[in-house]
Amino acid sequence: MSDPTMESLRNRLRAFVAERDWDQFHAPKSLAMSITIEAAELAEHFQWLRTGAPEELAPGQTAKVGEEMADVLLYLIRLADKLDIDLLAAADRKLDLNAIKYPVEKARGRSTKYDQL
Amino acid sequence: MSDPTMESLRNRLRAFVAERDWDQFHAPKSLAMSITIEAAELAEHFQWLRTGAPEELAPGQTAKVGEEMADVLLYLIRLADKLDIDLLAAADRKLDLNAIKYPVEKARGRSTKYDQL
Amino acid sequence: MSDPTMESLRNRLRAFVAERDWDQFHAPKSLAMSITIEAAELAEHFQWLRTGAPEELAPGQTAKVGEEMADVLLYLIRLADKLDIDLLAAADRKLDLNAIKYPVEKARGRSTKYDQL
Amino acid sequence: MSDPTMESLRNRLRAFVAERDWDQFHAPKSLAMSITIEAAELAEHFQWLRTGAPEELAPGQTAKVGEEMADVLLYLIRLADKLDIDLLAAADRKLDLNAIKYPVEKARGRSTKYDQL
Repeated sequence: MSDPTMESLRNRLRAFVAERDWDQFHAPKSLAMSITIEAAELAEHFQWLRTGAPEELAPGQTAKVGEEMADVLLYLIRLADKLDIDLLAAADRKLDLNAIKYPVEKARGRSTKYDQL
Repeated sequence: MSDPTMESLRNRLRAFVAERDWDQFHAPKSLAMSITIEAAELAEHFQWLRTGAPEELAPGQTAKVGEEMADVLLYLIRLADKLDIDLLAAADRKLDLNAIKYPVEKARGRSTKYDQL
Repeated sequence: MSDPTMESLRNRLRAFVAERDWDQFHAPKSLAMSITIEAAELAEHFQWLRTGAPEELAPGQTAKVGEEMADVLLYLIRLADKLDIDLLAAADRKLDLNAIKYPVEKARGRSTKYDQL
Repeated sequence: MSDPTMESLRNRLRAFVAERDWDQFHAPKSLAMSITIEAAELAEHFQWLRTGAPEELAPGQTAKVGEEMADVLLYLIRLADKLDIDLLAAADRKLDLNAIKYPVEKARGRSTKYDQL
């Protein structure tokens, strides 16, 4: 089998949803809400840690973290499919925009938001 | 130029962060928090819509939605890089797990959570 | 016993935390993160509903929703205590601000964000 | 004027919403989503801080944090009103439940989740 790609995951998700007749639940508003829910489940692993560095995670917890990150990604892919958005292209363009919002000379070493730089 | 991939985005992010000396801010806990923050900015576009179907989005809003989804993806990629997680492989495995958690015959047409199926 | 108030809850929380020696975990950043996590657990009850009107909630689910709302409130009270913020006064002032941001004549019947009104 | 209470805030919110004819937008699902959105705006103030202790917040930032906390509280009060939930009583009961979930002798000094204690 070949390595998974964004496209293969989108296709697996389509089949997964069709088999279960779940498309009726996948209003974009509900999918957007699902992304916040899965993001919070991811955050829960870091809630009481100092910084969440790998060495602070308990053994086996990184795998759990990966599963939560996977859930966020899967809902992102599903929402992108419903709205006909090319996620990878959108992320590539967003990096171009971020480079303009955060010019190296102004942003270096600072965590200040772009509108206050 | 070739199409962007998860790997090319990871590499662009690494360079972006290095140029700005931002790695000092990228504790996994802060990155996980950032994913919830960007997910909420995405959700904001759907907050007052009925279902968020494409036709309910104002003209030009889908592009904005794509930018917020891109932000979620970029932080996911960044956190995966810090924790040495292969996101695509994790999502592929998660789909296998979800297929077990939600057997077709039990889950068809129902939005019930797996532990209550 | 008298009815609970924001102040009595703050005091019960202080005692609860002291007895368990949990203040060491209650960095404001972690408490803020906890509010997003509990908010998402609340959202989970509405994830696949059409609008979440009371009649769409399953019997007994309103009590569960109340418990999740309680968790959000408890972390809010705890964070306010740590930062010495008077929550009720802050909410009262915020309503004054919102009345200015959303003048009746402009905002009536519209869900548009204030900066686009 | 007397000090604000949960009840006076609920009543001010009712009037605020009625004047603007906003009840049509306040489906419980949208209000729950709004709580996650405001919680994330609150989290944004702590995103890049080490712990978010008061001394790490910039001058004037505590007031901003208070405004975001106020937004979370206002939406909580609004949702409680729509679902006929007594928030203070729910929080008081939840503290009773939490005392059972986290017995002092087991939970002291540990941030472990109750189901793993």
